[in-house]
Amino acid sequence: MAKITSVSPLAPTSFPDLPVIKGARFATAAAGVKYAGRTDVMLALLDPGSCVAGAFTKSATRSANVLDCQSKIHLSGETGAAIIVNSGNSNAFTGRAGDASVKAICDEVAHVTGLPASRVFTSSTGVIGERLPHDRIQAKVQELHETLDDSGLPAAAKAIMTTDTFAKGATVTVELPRGPIKIAGIAKGSGMIAPDMATMLVYIFTDAKIAQGDLQAVVLDLNEKTFNCITVDSDTSTSDTLLVAATGTSGVSVTAKDAAFRDGLHHVMQDLAHQVVRDGEGATKFVEITVTGALSDGDAKTHAMAIANSPLVKTAIAGEDPNWGRVVMAIGKSGAPADRDTLSIAFGDVKVASNGWVDPGYREEEGAAIMKEQTIAITVDLGMGTGTSTVWTCDLTHGYISINADYRS
Amino acid sequence: MAKITSVSPLAPTSFPDLPVIKGARFATAAAGVKYAGRTDVMLALLDPGSCVAGAFTKSATRSANVLDCQSKIHLSGETGAAIIVNSGNSNAFTGRAGDASVKAICDEVAHVTGLPASRVFTSSTGVIGERLPHDRIQAKVQELHETLDDSGLPAAAKAIMTTDTFAKGATVTVELPRGPIKIAGIAKGSGMIAPDMATMLVYIFTDAKIAQGDLQAVVLDLNEKTFNCITVDSDTSTSDTLLVAATGTSGVSVTAKDAAFRDGLHHVMQDLAHQVVRDGEGATKFVEITVTGALSDGDAKTHAMAIANSPLVKTAIAGEDPNWGRVVMAIGKSGAPADRDTLSIAFGDVKVASNGWVDPGYREEEGAAIMKEQTIAITVDLGMGTGTSTVWTCDLTHGYISINADYRS
Repeated sequence: MAKITSVSPLAPTSFPDLPVIKGARFATAAAGVKYAGRTDVMLALLDPGSCVAGAFTKSATRSANVLDCQSKIHLSGETGAAIIVNSGNSNAFTGRAGDASVKAICDEVAHVTGLPASRVFTSSTGVIGERLPHDRIQAKVQELHETLDDSGLPAAAKAIMTTDTFAKGATVTVELPRGPIKIAGIAKGSGMIAPDMATMLVYIFTDAKIAQGDLQAVVLDLNEKTFNCITVDSDTSTSDTLLVAATGTSGVSVTAKDAAFRDGLHHVMQDLAHQVVRDGEGATKFVEITVTGALSDGDAKTHAMAIANSPLVKTAIAGEDPNWGRVVMAIGKSGAPADRDTLSIAFGDVKVASNGWVDPGYREEEGAAIMKEQTIAITVDLGMGTGTSTVWTCDLTHGYISINADYRS
Repeated sequence: MAKITSVSPLAPTSFPDLPVIKGARFATAAAGVKYAGRTDVMLALLDPGSCVAGAFTKSATRSANVLDCQSKIHLSGETGAAIIVNSGNSNAFTGRAGDASVKAICDEVAHVTGLPASRVFTSSTGVIGERLPHDRIQAKVQELHETLDDSGLPAAAKAIMTTDTFAKGATVTVELPRGPIKIAGIAKGSGMIAPDMATMLVYIFTDAKIAQGDLQAVVLDLNEKTFNCITVDSDTSTSDTLLVAATGTSGVSVTAKDAAFRDGLHHVMQDLAHQVVRDGEGATKFVEITVTGALSDGDAKTHAMAIANSPLVKTAIAGEDPNWGRVVMAIGKSGAPADRDTLSIAFGDVKVASNGWVDPGYREEEGAAIMKEQTIAITVDLGMGTGTSTVWTCDLTHGYISINADYRS
């Protein structure tokens, strides 16, 4: 059985060296919201001229924080902005009290920073349905403000962790003719991960100069290809939040059409998305599922997600069993069109099934060898059209049960 | 960790005393399809004048057997009919060879029984994607035919088991003014259970006299309320088959509108459906989820199934944790309309949440006490309309992982 306190075997070997993003400063504190002996609140302060874009969970029972962020995200930000995040309590399904907690925190941050409350974004992550002791967070805002530091992003990555076994960071520098743009981000999330989006909090900062509308368009588009293409357990959080802030301090202007900027942001978002899967509760295998030959990209994603979310596929992967029959089952149940007699499946570079049956050249030992790897690629070609999709998931193990059958106690 | 070979703790205390259904005879044999030292094939022979109705998986990759049954089910049966079932190999995703296996078995049964092949129904259950050694089944048909017995239904229930930990049977006698009608059925299935329908094979026999069209209409309607309202792991089999045969030997005629007959058949179908859940792989809790106050019955079922299929809800139940926040999460992600501020949740008779937050009278000890029961009722009222639905599921435990991470090896 997996040790719950150990670091995921799929974790990157080290936390990346995140660059300073001029115009963005960070602080963390131990507010004691729920956890003892660790930081559990982070504040990010963005200088005037910054803009913030975002994407949020589509849950019908999303948290008060998410509702508040959504109401503010489209404002452009000449005055700067603040992001304050706590771990330990999600402030979700806390009724009107939850709305009041968000207002109390926003007001306190506005008071201390001099920003309007409409420029303060909050996130809360942790247990659902328990009243957020927002006074403990309010009491730390002054201290947070006084300790803001432009190299504080790695510490912030730690403060927002809940059941995560490692802190998650990613960065890239985009070289443009007008000069370099830096992008650096952090994320948390390890269970309740599925589109739309995951128990996931993601904060990305860049010194690019970009209009809010352009940034918002890029973020929504890339979100569909990254955070909305990962799943750990098919469960969707009430708190999922992705915020991307651009400070403009590089002086390098970009638009939504700038391919190099998009590619750079895509890289950071995909890196963080993969790290969330790699910290999937109890995960021992990282799995990339690619479906091709579907009638549409949407159909391909429906099939890919059905495979990624199937408990029988995920337990077969955990058991290192090349049980491609379960992949067939998942395709069959997905609801999207499939034709048994044109279906092909490969595990890694081993073709296991083609044209509706086991591949004539398939040898079970070859499939079994692939399944022993830590990273496994499953490729399905439906042989029907040109639709494609790639999604990422992990296996389903005793570790997941151990963590989630005893999370709240 | 659950012992895989032990009987489910949720099993009924005994197998029911199934009555003889005149006009239906049964035989079993050990054909060695995959298992050694046990029976793995059953034959049911229905006298002339019987009719057969059925419902089948909607999987796009359903087995050759299912496709063959579907092509035959609407024929009326003056000549009688036969049902032959093997366990150990599902004959699913076996390409053209799968079709040939079905034809070979049907032809052999037709040859031995004198029935036309169009009146022979087959099912296969077990591993997907491996060629069915149908010659081993063909070799037993003569022996099966010679040992047919009208009291052989309980033995048939054993022959069709795969990962089941107990044999499943149910019966009822319907008293009508014109005389009694008997109904008796058997089922198998313990994983890959979800609408539409489950890794489930169900065979029900009655001596009622009813037209095939009427029986088909009743079966499809009741199937939606029974077998399509259970889920173990959200995975849907390629082989799910429900066949209901009416021999007419009671001489008591009924139609699709006969409430007593419908209620009797409903009782047997629901009993068998519950037994399938009670044998859910690794199950330690039987869970009934009722959603009321939805905008429609369909919305209610969407919410109920989202709760029933949520790994986080199912692991909380396994951990005896009254974590109603995860129920809120599941409602939020289901995609059907919900309003946080009109939502109420009860575990058993303990109201845990009302009007969007924890119920003022809720005490955690009361919720925890409910969760220690073996049978748990979760009731959600959405406070929006009059739509209702009830579904049944089990918890998600280490036992499920143990069974499914090592099923094929």
